[in-house]
Amino acid sequence: MSTDVLPLTDRTRVGRLRERQVRDRPELDTILDAGLVAHVAVCRDGVPLLLPMAYARDGDRLVLHGSTGAGLLRAVASGAPVAVAVTHLDGVVYARTAFESSMNYRSAVVYGTATVLEDDERFEALRLLTEHLMPGRWDEVRPPTRQELAATLVLAVPLQEASVKVRTGGPSDESADDPGVWAGVLPLGTSVGVPVPAEDLDADTPLPPSVLASIAAR
Amino acid sequence: MSTDVLPLTDRTRVGRLRERQVRDRPELDTILDAGLVAHVAVCRDGVPLLLPMAYARDGDRLVLHGSTGAGLLRAVASGAPVAVAVTHLDGVVYARTAFESSMNYRSAVVYGTATVLEDDERFEALRLLTEHLMPGRWDEVRPPTRQELAATLVLAVPLQEASVKVRTGGPSDESADDPGVWAGVLPLGTSVGVPVPAEDLDADTPLPPSVLASIAAR
Repeated sequence: MSTDVLPLTDRTRVGRLRERQVRDRPELDTILDAGLVAHVAVCRDGVPLLLPMAYARDGDRLVLHGSTGAGLLRAVASGAPVAVAVTHLDGVVYARTAFESSMNYRSAVVYGTATVLEDDERFEALRLLTEHLMPGRWDEVRPPTRQELAATLVLAVPLQEASVKVRTGGPSDESADDPGVWAGVLPLGTSVGVPVPAEDLDADTPLPPSVLASIAAR
Repeated sequence: MSTDVLPLTDRTRVGRLRERQVRDRPELDTILDAGLVAHVAVCRDGVPLLLPMAYARDGDRLVLHGSTGAGLLRAVASGAPVAVAVTHLDGVVYARTAFESSMNYRSAVVYGTATVLEDDERFEALRLLTEHLMPGRWDEVRPPTRQELAATLVLAVPLQEASVKVRTGGPSDESADDPGVWAGVLPLGTSVGVPVPAEDLDADTPLPPSVLASIAAR
């Protein structure tokens, strides 16, 4: 299907190191689904505003949320073009020269304009945002109140225009450059620590399935 | 000294959750020094361009580099206002409600305009970029050639205007909200894997101090 291939646009066409560009739509989904924090950029008077925030993928769109009082989100809600980036750093690439040193990574930058979600769509997006960050948590806690919903701005950005780049593997230097020097990759990943209970938590409250699942997934 | 306090501007003043704003300049340095990837945003015709890239701190400025052919960097080099974000995700905060769920993080967003570095400054910035990613590596490999230097655009952004935000600690919910539900923090961090030698590396090439130091530092 043509929808499985990401279109090339002025913003998504990789000019250099073209071998890193990935146009498979499923790869975009995989990168987005594996991340927890996105960086969101919008322009105001020619100046970029940039913030890290939570996100989730909802099929063919990406959902964001925040306070109705947040300046950056209000700009996005008013229809300003937005860019949303999710990046995984997978390793440091030690080449035999500084120039060829690199990083292994998977990155996706989604470009578009957002729509404001209301009513049932807003509620469902908040469920997805919670479930993306803490799978299984939604059913462990009470649903948002009407007041909480009213305080939350929820936006959706279509997954139509996106730049996906992936670098994997070892250094792309010439081994002849300095054969005596070690070269290779130092893999990096995410680690999960021991859960820290809230100070006011009853000591005998068991770890819930949502926390156990997140530990098991890492 | 006044230089130890970050100024509040339209872009750096935190409007909501003000308790998360940090104005100590040393905290900005600490956050920048602890990261490996920055997200860089610039506006072109009112549309944000956004990319992850390597960076390093050089005292009171942040240095970036890339190919002289890279569109985003060229826009930054031409004087367009730039935003550079570095974010550390330290934990997932499980509150007793979805609404109060949160993340522990440290983030810095630097705003400014860049200058293009030349000659000795460019060389020194490339050394810092290499040493930031792989401490000790610069002296293990040969220096860049004149050709490699000519192909590399190196930019510096002053650390004058920056928004630093930090969230730490447990959930800020009301324990009365649902006392039977587990609440707390699942800490997240970075893990380092086993180094993978380049395919063409002599089998008896020892791991260099730079790789060993990066493993020890995690």
